[in-house]
Amino acid sequence: MYLTQGLHRCLQQRPADIAIRYGERTRTFAELGARVARLAGALQSLGMGDGDRVSMLALNSDRYLEYMLGVWWGGGVLNPVNIRWSVPEIVYSLDDCDTRILLVDDHFLPLAQDIAATAAHRPTLVYTGEREAPQGMLAYEALIAEAQPVADAFRGGNDLASIMYTGGTTGRSKGVMQSHLNLWSSAISRMAEFRSYEHAISLHAAPLFHTAAMARAVGHFVAGDTHVVLPTFEPRAVLEAIERDRVDEILLVPTMLQAVLEHPDFKQRDLSSLRRIYYGASPIAAGVLDTALAALPGIEFFHAYGLTEAAPVVSVNPPANHGPEGRASGLYRSAGRAGFGVSVKVVDADGVEVPRNTVGEIAVRGANVMLGYWNKPEETRQALRDGWLHTGDGAYMDENGYLFIVDRMKDMIVTGGENVYSAEVENVLSRHPAVAQCAVIGIPDARWGEAVHAVVVARAGTRVDESALREHCRQFIAGYKCPKTIEFREALPLSAAGKILKRDLRAPYWQNQTRQVS
Amino acid sequence: MYLTQGLHRCLQQRPADIAIRYGERTRTFAELGARVARLAGALQSLGMGDGDRVSMLALNSDRYLEYMLGVWWGGGVLNPVNIRWSVPEIVYSLDDCDTRILLVDDHFLPLAQDIAATAAHRPTLVYTGEREAPQGMLAYEALIAEAQPVADAFRGGNDLASIMYTGGTTGRSKGVMQSHLNLWSSAISRMAEFRSYEHAISLHAAPLFHTAAMARAVGHFVAGDTHVVLPTFEPRAVLEAIERDRVDEILLVPTMLQAVLEHPDFKQRDLSSLRRIYYGASPIAAGVLDTALAALPGIEFFHAYGLTEAAPVVSVNPPANHGPEGRASGLYRSAGRAGFGVSVKVVDADGVEVPRNTVGEIAVRGANVMLGYWNKPEETRQALRDGWLHTGDGAYMDENGYLFIVDRMKDMIVTGGENVYSAEVENVLSRHPAVAQCAVIGIPDARWGEAVHAVVVARAGTRVDESALREHCRQFIAGYKCPKTIEFREALPLSAAGKILKRDLRAPYWQNQTRQVS
Repeated sequence: MYLTQGLHRCLQQRPADIAIRYGERTRTFAELGARVARLAGALQSLGMGDGDRVSMLALNSDRYLEYMLGVWWGGGVLNPVNIRWSVPEIVYSLDDCDTRILLVDDHFLPLAQDIAATAAHRPTLVYTGEREAPQGMLAYEALIAEAQPVADAFRGGNDLASIMYTGGTTGRSKGVMQSHLNLWSSAISRMAEFRSYEHAISLHAAPLFHTAAMARAVGHFVAGDTHVVLPTFEPRAVLEAIERDRVDEILLVPTMLQAVLEHPDFKQRDLSSLRRIYYGASPIAAGVLDTALAALPGIEFFHAYGLTEAAPVVSVNPPANHGPEGRASGLYRSAGRAGFGVSVKVVDADGVEVPRNTVGEIAVRGANVMLGYWNKPEETRQALRDGWLHTGDGAYMDENGYLFIVDRMKDMIVTGGENVYSAEVENVLSRHPAVAQCAVIGIPDARWGEAVHAVVVARAGTRVDESALREHCRQFIAGYKCPKTIEFREALPLSAAGKILKRDLRAPYWQNQTRQVS
Repeated sequence: MYLTQGLHRCLQQRPADIAIRYGERTRTFAELGARVARLAGALQSLGMGDGDRVSMLALNSDRYLEYMLGVWWGGGVLNPVNIRWSVPEIVYSLDDCDTRILLVDDHFLPLAQDIAATAAHRPTLVYTGEREAPQGMLAYEALIAEAQPVADAFRGGNDLASIMYTGGTTGRSKGVMQSHLNLWSSAISRMAEFRSYEHAISLHAAPLFHTAAMARAVGHFVAGDTHVVLPTFEPRAVLEAIERDRVDEILLVPTMLQAVLEHPDFKQRDLSSLRRIYYGASPIAAGVLDTALAALPGIEFFHAYGLTEAAPVVSVNPPANHGPEGRASGLYRSAGRAGFGVSVKVVDADGVEVPRNTVGEIAVRGANVMLGYWNKPEETRQALRDGWLHTGDGAYMDENGYLFIVDRMKDMIVTGGENVYSAEVENVLSRHPAVAQCAVIGIPDARWGEAVHAVVVARAGTRVDESALREHCRQFIAGYKCPKTIEFREALPLSAAGKILKRDLRAPYWQNQTRQVS
């Protein structure tokens, strides 16, 4: 099992079909295969040996997909850089796993020299942009043109395929080691669950450095689908691409979907080709779901819950639960059930399974579970215990195996000795018609240890105040769960994957505190 | 990755649904899970340790599926017995891999004591039949009733899941070592290719000891489908079960399908539930395909080519190629293209890929490829070279990656220095309206080394003689390829999997020859 296998199949069976569309540029499988074999040769000539890491710091492009395939073809390991990170964060992730080659596009060119200058092993810089290569950087296209194509190294199975640095929403960054088998088993399992037509045209608008988009790309490689690539998420460009390229499916987290639905172009574009929307990061708000179903009749929503350590999908909530029945029962807010090839249980602090409808920590087992954290044996032992990945995510499971995520275990608020799951409070707050978005966090409190604090984005054109929202909450949940304080903002800080960055919301409150929750 | 995972998912998500129907007996997933955990405990108390082999000699039943899951749950390895074998052949397969427990049903009871008496390690005999357990045998139901349920051993990944003895059609029997990952990756890949609806009702009529039926059962375990089990293939019972249980899909090799289509009950039964027929062993004859498509409108045919060493599927020919276009182009006779997760190439004697449309040996790579042959390092080295499984099957590949099997390399006939592929001659013969079935073999010839010999089953109600058939062949193929001699029979010898046993056809001719081809 190796992640270039899908490319080999397409080269054998359908070489003239379109593999990638990026703006005006298209690549057939034959062209892609030839470029990948040369890129692999170029990387090897730059010193990439079996299992060596190669990084890319770039917006999405056809070259991002070539980077993935070319590194694997040549026997290397991906270490894709989170595009939201600062130079010190990037340098940490490169140095931590000894990355010696870094590909950089036009957008991130201003950071390139700083990174190279501060990294412990000054990486070879490859420029993947559209202009002349700057001084001190090698030109991607020239490397491909000059390199000899090499044979596939056929690394696979339990060999390392990628090191994905997590962080963003919780704690210190760790390098998640994903094997070829991890990514392949995750991709093929989703295909078995979701697939019902051949040769999809799939739009990449979410960032490819992120494990969700990358795993989806792996699935499309296996199936030989056509990738339509946008440099970054931009609602107007998404709408234009769907119409122009007759896109079948797209990954859009709820915050992105909302932006697409609210864009003035939405009603002008022919979106009739779109069959499926995949989403993760969070459940979908009822209002967004209703709007989407009304505006895109027949659209199918697939929700997946996962994490980088599970490469990434753990559970799946199918389209059926997004219809009227799922809306009525509330099942549309579930993170779904264990997917094919994945075992899931909810456990207590001792790793013992808790009864249904009792909150505990999600534990996962399957071929998708990571090899461990790079160079972090202690953290690996903490995460992988008794054959199960302990996710740190809190949830309960209903009688039919559906998971309902309540929180990161670390996001749980302890106030006056009581546990408060912020998700429960957020669910109640979001039912108020004036609340567009919200996040609930714990902030230091002299008396209670922590106090429940809400950050709210009000819906445009509405008016609401703190006491009205507190009154609303008291109708549904216990007093100790209701926000003690509520703060209104224009927007919430989001990660590149569309997750609300609670760490950033909490930071100012905890700055001078000795006890830090996250 | 472990092969009991699908059962765990169903226990978690849908415990009250029907897992198995066998005659009047049904088992829900909850019942099946409880029985499997107890059977695993019983087998462990009989001495089954991690990786130990357990055999079953039986027709199909619900207990056959319990045997599969119970052995895996308890940490053991399957060694299913070929039901066509004689006592010495069975004893060889048990002794070769040191099997200490043997399950036997009513049908094979007469062989049980003989086997136990002649096996090197007298195996513990477990009676899985419907009556009182005979003297010297343990009762399956009593074992389950008395055993304590045990926790899943969670063996998986590259751990051994089964040792499948091949033979039947070629050479000496070898134990093919299949891992959990081999069987799982094969099953999940087919699901990704074929799946388009949930919770299939699937009929097992082909023998479960065979890798094709077993791999299909594994897929149904993953999906949580309902297994309807018949003890053995019998056209009347197949038709009755499809109607009674509203069966969605079935595995029927072409010889079985033909028998079903020609059965007097065919027109009496309501077969409207049937959506799919899977087949292997050989391509489908045009006449059978046309009859089936006319009689079962909308039916989908999936053809898979494979071998036990590939656990088993290598390539797949989808329904589209069984329609009018595929009939016209001849693509319906292809073995299909490399399936998801499988790499295929056609190579020469040095392992170098040959040009398209050139005959060579099929080589296979993927997570489905066996671990090797049990206790046969030399045969393993022969089969697994340079990372590829060398199948011994001859074929050519067309421009679009479609494989056309010409023969077992060993079935190739060498006559007067020319290679003759029996499949080519059989294809021509079968186009004659009077030919119902045929097989072409090489027989000793003093002048040519081997001579081309045909065995023909004439269609009922037709008359044809040797010279007319030879004349027919000369219109399509070179003289040296035409049968020198033609023999008419009532029927051809078939293996349990429905393959024509050419070895049996050849045997009488080669008995006293020093040079033996197969």
